[in-house]
Amino acid sequence: MKFPNGYIGKHQSTGIQEPWPQIYGQSRIGRGTYIAGTVIIGHPTKEERLLLIENRLNEVAGSVVGENCVLRHFGVLNSKATLGNSVQTGHNWMVREHSTVGESSLIGSGVIIDDHCAIGRHVSIQTRAYIPTNTVIEDDVFIAPCVCFTNDKYMGRGNITLAGAHVEQGARIGGNVTILPGIRIGRESVIGAGSVVTKDVPAYAVMVGNPAKKIKDSPQEHRKF
Amino acid sequence: MKFPNGYIGKHQSTGIQEPWPQIYGQSRIGRGTYIAGTVIIGHPTKEERLLLIENRLNEVAGSVVGENCVLRHFGVLNSKATLGNSVQTGHNWMVREHSTVGESSLIGSGVIIDDHCAIGRHVSIQTRAYIPTNTVIEDDVFIAPCVCFTNDKYMGRGNITLAGAHVEQGARIGGNVTILPGIRIGRESVIGAGSVVTKDVPAYAVMVGNPAKKIKDSPQEHRKF
Amino acid sequence: MKFPNGYIGKHQSTGIQEPWPQIYGQSRIGRGTYIAGTVIIGHPTKEERLLLIENRLNEVAGSVVGENCVLRHFGVLNSKATLGNSVQTGHNWMVREHSTVGESSLIGSGVIIDDHCAIGRHVSIQTRAYIPTNTVIEDDVFIAPCVCFTNDKYMGRGNITLAGAHVEQGARIGGNVTILPGIRIGRESVIGAGSVVTKDVPAYAVMVGNPAKKIKDSPQEHRKF
Repeated sequence: MKFPNGYIGKHQSTGIQEPWPQIYGQSRIGRGTYIAGTVIIGHPTKEERLLLIENRLNEVAGSVVGENCVLRHFGVLNSKATLGNSVQTGHNWMVREHSTVGESSLIGSGVIIDDHCAIGRHVSIQTRAYIPTNTVIEDDVFIAPCVCFTNDKYMGRGNITLAGAHVEQGARIGGNVTILPGIRIGRESVIGAGSVVTKDVPAYAVMVGNPAKKIKDSPQEHRKF
Repeated sequence: MKFPNGYIGKHQSTGIQEPWPQIYGQSRIGRGTYIAGTVIIGHPTKEERLLLIENRLNEVAGSVVGENCVLRHFGVLNSKATLGNSVQTGHNWMVREHSTVGESSLIGSGVIIDDHCAIGRHVSIQTRAYIPTNTVIEDDVFIAPCVCFTNDKYMGRGNITLAGAHVEQGARIGGNVTILPGIRIGRESVIGAGSVVTKDVPAYAVMVGNPAKKIKDSPQEHRKF
Repeated sequence: MKFPNGYIGKHQSTGIQEPWPQIYGQSRIGRGTYIAGTVIIGHPTKEERLLLIENRLNEVAGSVVGENCVLRHFGVLNSKATLGNSVQTGHNWMVREHSTVGESSLIGSGVIIDDHCAIGRHVSIQTRAYIPTNTVIEDDVFIAPCVCFTNDKYMGRGNITLAGAHVEQGARIGGNVTILPGIRIGRESVIGAGSVVTKDVPAYAVMVGNPAKKIKDSPQEHRKF
């Protein structure tokens, strides 16, 4: 479904045979945005749990989606999440509350972005990467497939704030990389596929291994930012 | 859809425009449970394949879901699987036949639990962890995002029983960890993110690396069980 | 939905309440194939983007699905993709354009196969493995859960062709393995779970670690091809 004039909505659902896509609450969809039929926009947040289980979906805060986005199948955008203009998704994606994804960024198939994340512009989040709560990703970052960020150093014990990573502009993170909580990944750095990043990464460093170690600086001709 | 009085059901589907959620066979849903509109309950097992492809969905055995569960979107619960009371899921989850998930456990978004698994109570299975056939997970275990258990030592060759891992009470397994077939993970142990566990883990051990090696015992103040 | 006489189709969708499964364009479905109600066949490719966002789904090229396949829930098969006879899928799967999957191969739950991949016959692609653009997988290969292939050495920089891996007949790749771009994996080789494959793998070699190193040859009694 394309929204040539944009869309500012209330809950469209009535009864069991719900119209698709489902757009809940005061969600706002920009002009020219396409949303596939199986996508759910404005899904209740954890704080809106009562609205979910009591089916009071017209009362949720709703999502904000920019102009000229393409949101493909089996996606869930939570209430209080924001997608900028020209964001594209693959299939089977999810962005949770209080997260923002900047203009022209790509959310690959299977990508999950949890709550309270700030994703910049022109970020490429490839297939099935996982971005947990409180992660910051600056502009022009490349996140390869199956990358797993973490944020919970004590894994459910201790009484701490979830500490997401902070990835600086233009960094590139290889396939299936694991990144420990609270790590800072420097500008234009490169993390080799399969690495486990256990400490901060300097700008322009190329790091590989488990634990990841610096092997060189990135070639000048590959730097852009 | 919420079931204030519980539900004991037959197949509700008639024709192409199926009502949602789809609940097949003799599935039983406890009081106060919420099931999102795109969820499929009682999906035919491998042994019920004929019922699947011949659309005889009212003849499947069905699933059992406890009281006060919250089952979010794009989930599949197979026939002959059981969820205890107060189980919660994220989106896009799957639990297969002859598996049980105990009371108050969390099935994160993207989690897949294959058949013949026994998952305890108050277990936290975070985003997109994968639990294969014949895995046992005791109470109070924490499984971080993208953890990959395995169970097939010879990967399709040899004539062996699939040997899942056994995780003892209160163990915590870090993000993107790989666990080899048949491993026993001791009580209250901790596996660092990105590790590859190739041998049994003693109780209270903290292990990291590929292959994972013990670096210390877990701090007393983090032990709870 | 089962197709006892096969199906050669045009777009079946009219309005918001679309019939399921959705089968677009000139898709062809072989006799005896079962397609679950939530599956999308013939989804527009990247080149057919205009047809997608303008809802001209009857104009897409469509997919080709063989006979006696079983395609389970929440799957997306792109236009210009081909599945051979007796292909089976789990739930939540995706195969993109110009990719072919050979006869009797298994596409596990959560598996994503990107465009321009050639997958042989009797290939087992287990849960949530990821196969990117330009990957070649010969017959009888076993790909364990959560395997992550890659294809982009410079991760978005440089002006290069995406170089997928080439996996020779009967190779077995363990759980959560990472494979770097352009790698050749030899006939009947075995890669241990959690390994990171950074260079070509000789035939019959058993390799483990990060980076993966050869530790021995595979036992004769496990060789089949």
